[in-house]
Amino acid sequence: MAYEAYFKEHREEHLDQLKEWISIPSISAQSEHKGDVNRAAGWLADTLKNAGLENVEIHETAGHPVVYADHLHAPGKPTILVYGHYDVQPVDPLHLWETPPFEPDIRDNKLYARGATDDKGQLFLHIKAIEAILRQEKSLPVNIKVCIEGEEEISSANLHPFLEANKDKLATDAVLISDTELLGPGRPAICTGLRGLCSLDVNVRTANTDLHSGTYGGGVPNALHSLVTLLASLHDEQGRVSVDGFYDDAPALSDEMRAELAKKGFDEEQLKARLDLDALFGEEGYSYVERTGARPTLEINGMYGGFQGEGTKTVIPGEAHAKITCRLVGRQKPQDILDKIERHIRSHTPAGARVTVVQREKGNPFTIEPSIPLLQKAADAYEQVYGTRPVFTKDGGSIPIVEAFARELSAPVVLMGFGLPTENLHAPNEHFHLENFDKGLLTIVEFLKRI
Amino acid sequence: MAYEAYFKEHREEHLDQLKEWISIPSISAQSEHKGDVNRAAGWLADTLKNAGLENVEIHETAGHPVVYADHLHAPGKPTILVYGHYDVQPVDPLHLWETPPFEPDIRDNKLYARGATDDKGQLFLHIKAIEAILRQEKSLPVNIKVCIEGEEEISSANLHPFLEANKDKLATDAVLISDTELLGPGRPAICTGLRGLCSLDVNVRTANTDLHSGTYGGGVPNALHSLVTLLASLHDEQGRVSVDGFYDDAPALSDEMRAELAKKGFDEEQLKARLDLDALFGEEGYSYVERTGARPTLEINGMYGGFQGEGTKTVIPGEAHAKITCRLVGRQKPQDILDKIERHIRSHTPAGARVTVVQREKGNPFTIEPSIPLLQKAADAYEQVYGTRPVFTKDGGSIPIVEAFARELSAPVVLMGFGLPTENLHAPNEHFHLENFDKGLLTIVEFLKRI
Repeated sequence: MAYEAYFKEHREEHLDQLKEWISIPSISAQSEHKGDVNRAAGWLADTLKNAGLENVEIHETAGHPVVYADHLHAPGKPTILVYGHYDVQPVDPLHLWETPPFEPDIRDNKLYARGATDDKGQLFLHIKAIEAILRQEKSLPVNIKVCIEGEEEISSANLHPFLEANKDKLATDAVLISDTELLGPGRPAICTGLRGLCSLDVNVRTANTDLHSGTYGGGVPNALHSLVTLLASLHDEQGRVSVDGFYDDAPALSDEMRAELAKKGFDEEQLKARLDLDALFGEEGYSYVERTGARPTLEINGMYGGFQGEGTKTVIPGEAHAKITCRLVGRQKPQDILDKIERHIRSHTPAGARVTVVQREKGNPFTIEPSIPLLQKAADAYEQVYGTRPVFTKDGGSIPIVEAFARELSAPVVLMGFGLPTENLHAPNEHFHLENFDKGLLTIVEFLKRI
Repeated sequence: MAYEAYFKEHREEHLDQLKEWISIPSISAQSEHKGDVNRAAGWLADTLKNAGLENVEIHETAGHPVVYADHLHAPGKPTILVYGHYDVQPVDPLHLWETPPFEPDIRDNKLYARGATDDKGQLFLHIKAIEAILRQEKSLPVNIKVCIEGEEEISSANLHPFLEANKDKLATDAVLISDTELLGPGRPAICTGLRGLCSLDVNVRTANTDLHSGTYGGGVPNALHSLVTLLASLHDEQGRVSVDGFYDDAPALSDEMRAELAKKGFDEEQLKARLDLDALFGEEGYSYVERTGARPTLEINGMYGGFQGEGTKTVIPGEAHAKITCRLVGRQKPQDILDKIERHIRSHTPAGARVTVVQREKGNPFTIEPSIPLLQKAADAYEQVYGTRPVFTKDGGSIPIVEAFARELSAPVVLMGFGLPTENLHAPNEHFHLENFDKGLLTIVEFLKRI
């Protein structure tokens, strides 16, 4: 039977299974759902077994378990490691949900529930695709390993050490992940870059107390003036980051890459209207899509000092605080960038100010060449099913575990997403458009068979 | 009897009276003390009457009453209007007081209580000086008017309209106020300048919501970047305010004025040690005493935007806020300065930011020429009693009612203070050094007789 017919025949059964899984409120961030998280892991293990996968294991960690399974009966063929996560985001604000988040409901060919697209629904496609091939052909065209975590929504704290400790077990020729997005309906995309992340707090102290601006105004340093001066020095007037060496390891954009990114398409007026923005702003010489996907950035995320109440208080603040994050690309390393920012801060600290820096998060950027055969095969699979070749995109966000997989396992990571940007991830009324449920199953089968 | 002997003979009686007045908790800011404020006004009216003053009136206002009295029996002689206030500051934190704030206690020749120096104690000197002259000489060398308010600690909201409505009644040749400070023990001072004040809020909006720095970072304006850029433009690297025309109406300091201000003396190392400051900072070309007394200043009093919690939040703030006050000198007008700052803000607003400005307080600076005869006579009186000529100082703080008296009544204002900078005004353990109680009585008598 052709796969299209097979999936059609089993559609109701598959959707019922997915609904059953999605009904389990496996919210990793909330300890009262610890039992649900475990139930979702157990359900996953059983389903992997029923699909024909072997060596199904539930690995306990310091947090939520990692589920492993494999099917290694294609000697001489490549090994593919499928990664995904069975945990979901919290559901607040509950009153904005049109149907309860853990009572899956299909309306207008969309499956509504928490986790419908992120990531249970997309991960489920891989299980059913593998199951379909095994049932139809009694064997797989590749060796398969599956590694599913329950802490993606809470920073994958325990997957990082699991990866390090299980490099042999997880050894693979490629990692396959469906946790990203199409550009829009019928517009497939393969993400070839995720930005890295580093963050820091900047704390300025001048006097040991706030001072009266009548008595001292004009004669002593003001912590807010110092911080404002310091932060203003971080960018030049062309929107570039002024930190010495900041761009050293950010690759120049080739004409090919720029042409590929431009395919994504971008409606500046529509964005300005939606955000009620007078103007866009960013690094001179780059388009919006390049700035947000393929260029690094430094943003002040928060700042405070002195009097914040109503009216006037004639005070000279003795301390002031800011929070900063950078998004990184190419070979930029979080620690190196943090060190460069600290050097900039030291050399730009105004007289009378004492600055302390607290370094916080550090995540490497991920990048993969669209030209490698595996990505071209993924593109072929999409094109076969969707009738249009996917665009190779760069995503501005950060998923540090992707880079960790690539680095720890020395394997390319293929990001084949089937969600839509409008599916309310992390928000009320999360849903998964079933057109991409149907096409996703076929695309994964196509991809596995083409490798 | 010489006045020295007179005041010595009546010292216990005077101190007992003052203690009685100070025992009344006339805290103008706290409505539960409304009755106490009225009692303090009544006590004052009775005491003025007993001192020999006439036409004693308690004027009700929208807030606390104004007490008026006069003694107008010196035809052809100048009229002097004595101003002061009978309200006091709140007493928190109560546990830091060594003796209860409204149980006056004399220790080490200092009278401890709320209001001991600010301003009941200093105002009391005038009443007893007038009473002494009347008792000793049966007449006054000048005409006297007394105008005492009960809202100085809460911005004199009702005295301003009272002044405007009673210009004829209050008409005078000079205003005499004791609500300022000596430079230190045995170092008298006459304040010849108080800075004016204006304040404003600056609000920046970029997008209509906070945005995710992964998706949008590098492509959209950041409200904190905009505000930081804007605020950094307000000063140059030499600590000068960069607002066009800001200094236009601030007078140049003459060599004489600089020499007079330098007499105040200032220990930079002591100040740095006390405030734990690495360095002082301010407008280049001016000393600390000049910067804080005779030069205008612009201070950011508070600022906030974006994430202020613990850790990292990858957000691009859609709005940011700052609060600014200026201290003004010479002929600088609050409205003019606010308008100039607004123009600066308009012309320095970064692309993509929308800025709104809320103008708040406006108080004119006060200044008086030390060379005028009345101030020289005040200096003579101090010199006679203290054995040293007072320094003519500029105070960095703002008491808008002083300028209002000078303007509404077209009269010079003589600021003859008898407090010390160390007497804990507005703080626990406020006190009044009785050396200046004794010398203050004699100095006021000397001054009135010399006019």
